[in-house]
Amino acid sequence: MRDIGIGLAGFGTVGAGVYLNLEKNRALLRERVGCDLAVRRVAVRDLSRQRAVPVPSGVACGTWRELLDDPAVEVVVELMGGIEEPRELILEAIRRGKIVVTGNKALLAEHGAEIFALATEKRVPVFYEAAVAGGIPIIKSVREAFVANHFLRVRAIINGTSNYILTRMAESGLDFATALAEAQAAGYAEADPTLDVNGWDAGHKAIILASLAYGFWVPSKDVLVEGIEKITPADMRFAAQLGYTVKLLAVIDACADGSVEVSVQPSLVPDSNILSSVRGVFNAIAVRGDVVGDALFYGRGAGQDPTASSVIGDLADAALALQAPRESYGFIPHGLYGRLRPSDEVVSPFYLRLGVDDRPGVLARIAGVLGEADIGISSVIQPETDEGQQAALVLMIHDAPRGRMLSALAEIRALDCVHDEPALYRVEAAE
Amino acid sequence: MRDIGIGLAGFGTVGAGVYLNLEKNRALLRERVGCDLAVRRVAVRDLSRQRAVPVPSGVACGTWRELLDDPAVEVVVELMGGIEEPRELILEAIRRGKIVVTGNKALLAEHGAEIFALATEKRVPVFYEAAVAGGIPIIKSVREAFVANHFLRVRAIINGTSNYILTRMAESGLDFATALAEAQAAGYAEADPTLDVNGWDAGHKAIILASLAYGFWVPSKDVLVEGIEKITPADMRFAAQLGYTVKLLAVIDACADGSVEVSVQPSLVPDSNILSSVRGVFNAIAVRGDVVGDALFYGRGAGQDPTASSVIGDLADAALALQAPRESYGFIPHGLYGRLRPSDEVVSPFYLRLGVDDRPGVLARIAGVLGEADIGISSVIQPETDEGQQAALVLMIHDAPRGRMLSALAEIRALDCVHDEPALYRVEAAE
Repeated sequence: MRDIGIGLAGFGTVGAGVYLNLEKNRALLRERVGCDLAVRRVAVRDLSRQRAVPVPSGVACGTWRELLDDPAVEVVVELMGGIEEPRELILEAIRRGKIVVTGNKALLAEHGAEIFALATEKRVPVFYEAAVAGGIPIIKSVREAFVANHFLRVRAIINGTSNYILTRMAESGLDFATALAEAQAAGYAEADPTLDVNGWDAGHKAIILASLAYGFWVPSKDVLVEGIEKITPADMRFAAQLGYTVKLLAVIDACADGSVEVSVQPSLVPDSNILSSVRGVFNAIAVRGDVVGDALFYGRGAGQDPTASSVIGDLADAALALQAPRESYGFIPHGLYGRLRPSDEVVSPFYLRLGVDDRPGVLARIAGVLGEADIGISSVIQPETDEGQQAALVLMIHDAPRGRMLSALAEIRALDCVHDEPALYRVEAAE
Repeated sequence: MRDIGIGLAGFGTVGAGVYLNLEKNRALLRERVGCDLAVRRVAVRDLSRQRAVPVPSGVACGTWRELLDDPAVEVVVELMGGIEEPRELILEAIRRGKIVVTGNKALLAEHGAEIFALATEKRVPVFYEAAVAGGIPIIKSVREAFVANHFLRVRAIINGTSNYILTRMAESGLDFATALAEAQAAGYAEADPTLDVNGWDAGHKAIILASLAYGFWVPSKDVLVEGIEKITPADMRFAAQLGYTVKLLAVIDACADGSVEVSVQPSLVPDSNILSSVRGVFNAIAVRGDVVGDALFYGRGAGQDPTASSVIGDLADAALALQAPRESYGFIPHGLYGRLRPSDEVVSPFYLRLGVDDRPGVLARIAGVLGEADIGISSVIQPETDEGQQAALVLMIHDAPRGRMLSALAEIRALDCVHDEPALYRVEAAE
């Protein structure tokens, strides 16, 4: 096989990792892939910037457009960050018949339909293993290994930063701000951690996974995504007392009516569920198929080397595609049917923490509102407080549709005995 | 794409599972693969036998040779069991240019070199995801997703039957024979459980994994394989007391001198290691690559449907190979270098249980032998017994070469204060 010419767009952490590991394991890769994966161009926005890994001399260029114009670049690896420029680059690369490898989850979640429609039309492969869960080969497994399966459900911890923060909060009683600062100091959270802690990094990954598993583009604007910013040390303690651990959980469910639930929410995960023991920056994805049953993948979801491992795996697939082109390369190998279940209709148990007056009759009034809404209570914790003070009241709620739960909560908040912002979290049912 | 003609050799549990699931998810598979995976022939030894799933009419035949002669059969799925007939079938199928899918781990571990040499020569793909860990896509992940990696180590629980037995022994104090009988009653162990409990089922899988990861055919006769038959409830209790769980562990290690350690042995796994919590019939495989870091796969390692899921995944890859043939299809895409580390040279900590006289000076004599051999003791448990009776003595041994440990043990057994068969198990070091 002849060598494969690669153009890297972006030379940040992951881009540099791809370059370094291609160099380090060049001999091994040549044996396994049968050719050199040769980096012919590296495009960076600022050529003069000092970098931890210098852009290799002779291949540096100042704009990604040069990757498109260079006939020696057969595969474009997009690791730039952002949305609009990567979108332009990828669409134009496909038009010119260049294979695309990307780790850009936000781009795929927002513009995947457009990108893969063009890729299908032009019969150009687009690989994206690095977009979901770093070094874990979940995309290849769902696309290829589990091809025989209808997917019944996915549960996933796919944001290492928030899982690190939640682990520190659960195990050391830190509050959110302190745990976040610690994550930043340890290099596990970026200076701007917004997309990690508001749930959207995990949200983008869940949208890609669900779209792949169910064969339609899940509309991101309709997906329920909530972050971990409001979780308190008290929530962590109450959850532990009840036998749960709070995790930022991606939930994908095939519903009986043919719709698909997709959400990312802080969820109380039972201690008996293996996902409750996923600690620190690790990711885990539990898949249930109608043939394979339960399978779980666990590993590092981010970082220079794990992500580079996935990009290089995609480059090997790109090399094979150049050698033996297939008839089609759609993102979704089956029809574009399916629909997202409105989040109001999604049914689950809930955890509800309220700040209430510590006086007789309060629980009765709250229980009354829930009873009117036909929502059942499975247990109640009311820690003791000094007479007459404000108290926390924690209710575990039986399966209820989220919309009805939110309406009842609005009524409860209007009660004069209820103070503070309530906390309402989904509870993952025990198996 | 045109339809793909499949010939099934064998219609036992897995063969019937492949057929049933191809039928059940036919529409889904047609969408995803782009063609029908059509079973054209099913070969069984005894056409008249009553079966839980009847052989579909019109495709049944009484000998696997008919699969070879039928031009409508493009892919041969070998699920017959045994060694010699499957070997003949697979070699002849390759000679005739028919793609092979097999789940026959014993065959690949013993005759893989011959089969894949022919497959490489004839450029015919041979797929074998179902041969290792049922529904877990470990072969595809090691071959394709982790292509960028030198594999540093693998630790795996890859025999569900023995893991079920060990789980019952550890959690309910059962002895081996009782736990085995229970596993048989529950359908988790076959009437003849020899290969499961003597370690060789896991041994075959470890040999395939190691050969794939390190690029040379690991000679099965030189691989250290030990079973779980001699583990006692006392060993389970002592292990627990020391913070370990006994697992039948496949160990694959890249050694500093370039050799590769491959073994399957009962091992004490620290409770802090996630593998210690893999219970019942589940399998788990922990892989460490020099780029991806640690990744773990968990799922069902056997059973009709999980194994069928892997076979059908291979059939989808076979369909792609028919559509877009590659230049080469070797088992091992890199060179056939590498060598197995002799098991005598492998270094690990050990657990040693001895039956000894309960009198002063015994520990001193045993420690003396170990000291002479330059083998260190990290801890000792000597449960109390009535004066003058025989007692168990449990020693935890620091890192020692297995050969030297075995020599010292021979000397210890010769002491007049030592009775019974000693138990010596590898200890997995804490990280």
